[in-house]
Amino acid sequence: MHRAHSDKQTAILDAAQKRFSFYGLTKVTMDEIAEDLGISKAALYYYFPAKEELFRQVIARRHNEFFDLVEDANKTIQIAGEKILRYFQLYLAFFNKLLNLNLVNLNTVDIIHPIIKILFVEFTKKEYDLIESILHEGKKNNEFKIDSPQKTTVLLQHVMQGLRMRFFKAARNRDLEEFDIKMYENDIRLFAKIFLIGIGFPAENACL
Amino acid sequence: MHRAHSDKQTAILDAAQKRFSFYGLTKVTMDEIAEDLGISKAALYYYFPAKEELFRQVIARRHNEFFDLVEDANKTIQIAGEKILRYFQLYLAFFNKLLNLNLVNLNTVDIIHPIIKILFVEFTKKEYDLIESILHEGKKNNEFKIDSPQKTTVLLQHVMQGLRMRFFKAARNRDLEEFDIKMYENDIRLFAKIFLIGIGFPAENACL
Repeated sequence: MHRAHSDKQTAILDAAQKRFSFYGLTKVTMDEIAEDLGISKAALYYYFPAKEELFRQVIARRHNEFFDLVEDANKTIQIAGEKILRYFQLYLAFFNKLLNLNLVNLNTVDIIHPIIKILFVEFTKKEYDLIESILHEGKKNNEFKIDSPQKTTVLLQHVMQGLRMRFFKAARNRDLEEFDIKMYENDIRLFAKIFLIGIGFPAENACL
Repeated sequence: MHRAHSDKQTAILDAAQKRFSFYGLTKVTMDEIAEDLGISKAALYYYFPAKEELFRQVIARRHNEFFDLVEDANKTIQIAGEKILRYFQLYLAFFNKLLNLNLVNLNTVDIIHPIIKILFVEFTKKEYDLIESILHEGKKNNEFKIDSPQKTTVLLQHVMQGLRMRFFKAARNRDLEEFDIKMYENDIRLFAKIFLIGIGFPAENACL
């Protein structure tokens, strides 16, 4: 569970998210968000001192939501391999949601990057701990045949980051197409399967 | 085998490679290369109409060398899984050579990129054909348990590209360290192992 926002803050984040989703980070002004909420600009700045901070927190909510779902799943699932599978599934849903909400607007990815850089570091850290603990558990109970849960976690993260970078790079020179998203999803699905079998999970259960 | 260069062209490429390795693409002039060879600038331009073309061909030689080695290995190796292993080994050696020759100078990666873009497309195409044919062979002789050699090849290429992008990205904000190279090599080695086991190669033979 994460630090709860007040009702006011939640309402502001909802309104901001709507604006950002429609118009992208650069085109939205604090005036417009205040107007949507029927509050003064001063009141808005009281809660969020800058537009970038507002944007950051809109993204942070999605991150937190993702990790809450993964942690909930881990509580109910007994088999480490299925925890990893569930992680991949939730990751795909999370990524798709970010794209659908248009929060990671691909034309402004370079502008957005510095703003969410700290978030990304936090995301990576949390994701590492989560995956490492599952791999450790799977090694301990002989589900996974791996030498080092640490090194395997690093590889998994690097592959995921690399596939994501490839995906976003396509959007630098042209608009992102449905085709790109499908290919990215296929990459993640097939990688998840090969990865799980590769660390010793039975092939027949390894399909996403 | 690839189109042979004349002795003159080879000598020019050797001299250019030396210069580029020491000073990087941007700092080297055609005058200097001509001077190294004791030929006129006109004579140099007769063989290579632009510095960028010279640079491109220096890189192309390394690419060709890599593919020649892979093709040679494939002729003598009988087991598809070992062909893939050998491909990974040769790839690591090739990548290291490019770095050691300082040809992919990391401070000028953005300048170099457009110049070698076509080369990269050719590299990707050749690499695809090569890997796809090995995976196809391994599926046919029941070494590999894969549904689609094509899709598996795409994933393998995407992961390799992604890991490479991650690696080069580290060099955008700081100098590349020995540490980065070690980590990249570890990524490739562990990925190769998990990938091979993941597609059904016996674990005991899957170590790079």
